[in-house]
Parts: sequence; structure tokens; C-alpha cells
Amino acid sequence: MENRLDFKLRVLRGDEIALGPGKVALLEAIAACGSISGAARAMGMSYRRAWLLVDTMNRSFSEPLVITSPGGSKGGGASVTQTGESVMAIYRAMQRRSEAAIQDDAQAILKLLHPL
Amino acid sequence: MENRLDFKLRVLRGDEIALGPGKVALLEAIAACGSISGAARAMGMSYRRAWLLVDTMNRSFSEPLVITSPGGSKGGGASVTQTGESVMAIYRAMQRRSEAAIQDDAQAILKLLHPL
Repeated sequence: MENRLDFKLRVLRGDEIALGPGKVALLEAIAACGSISGAARAMGMSYRRAWLLVDTMNRSFSEPLVITSPGGSKGGGASVTQTGESVMAIYRAMQRRSEAAIQDDAQAILKLLHPL
Repeated sequence: MENRLDFKLRVLRGDEIALGPGKVALLEAIAACGSISGAARAMGMSYRRAWLLVDTMNRSFSEPLVITSPGGSKGGGASVTQTGESVMAIYRAMQRRSEAAIQDDAQAILKLLHPL
């Protein structure tokens, strides 16, 4: 582990976390795997936990970010909607822009750390 | 609780959190109160916890951020060093710059949320 800046961006709807780094990673995994169960496996997360995260995202936004097609208890496919794609893109853009905006300050503060 | 973006910046030294929102707030409270015990009280935190946070910060940076003057078990005074002031200033600058950099994206993503 090197010295670094850690940077966490979360979208809060009331007191619920509508979106954060874990949920965005899950969206990306669902887009890549085509199912919630596949995405959960890829992320080393239980199907139940992945499903709950998707449910929170879908309830938090005016349109669902993930839609599922039926196919048995864990067998159905899932895909990221256009709203989901927009949300992922905006989140990534925010991350990139923040990182760019603080690059110089980050170097300055890291220099003040005691060497490891 | 309204809908909003939450934004957490942490400085990691190896796997230890050298600085984050709580530690910066504690530095500000120490600067305002002139003692660790006063700052702890103001933040509703135990003296022990405040002391541990200060200890972590002081060990993490090449120069201490807080110095204490002796005065009994909890009675001594504490002040923020010049390095501590620099660290607070850089942290606050990073926060301001990130917030400014993502303002438009933040509005865009908050608009996609389901109304509360």
C-alpha cells in the first residue's frame, strides 16, 4: 500500500445511499456479465447482496438503472438501462474531474507525509 | 435530509488513514478550543478517541500537526502547528476545488433521482 488520496463520491437520496463506488462497480459488472448473479460472482458478493444494491438503485432513481428478465430464481438475465448508462457516465466524469482538480494539492499533501 | 452529493476525501499512508473529514474537523476544534479535551467535548467525542486521532495524525506526517503542553492527565493545552495549518488549508482547498469541478455533473445526477 503506497501513500495516496482516497476519494469517495456518493449520491444520497434522503438518508439512503442511491449510488457510490460499490454500486457503480456493480452496474459495470452487470453490463459486462449480463446478469445479477454473474456480476455478484465476479465481485465476490452474495447474490442477495447484489440484488439488494440493485433494488436500492432502482428505487432511488426515477427510472430503473437495471432491468431483469425472468428466468427462475437466479437464472434471469439483467441489463443496464439507458438511464443506468447515463448515471455511470456522469459518476465517472465526476471522479475524473475531481481528481484532475485536486492533483496539485494532492501532491502537496502527500509530500508532507512521513515516508513509509 | 435532502438529496445531495456526499464527498469524502481521505489521505492514506499505507493502510492507515492519515487524514479525513473527522480528523480535519478535530484539528479545527483544537485550534478553536486550545486543548484536546475541549475539542473532544465540543465534538461529542471521548478524550481517548480524540487523543488517538491526534496520535495517528502526528505519526503520519513528517512533522506533528498538533503539539501539547503538559498539565495533568487531561489538563494540558494543545495547539495546531504550522504544518497542521498547512494540512488543513490544503484539505479545504481540495474540497472546494472538487466541489466546483463537479457542480454541473452533480446537478445532472441529482435530477435523475426519484423525488423524495
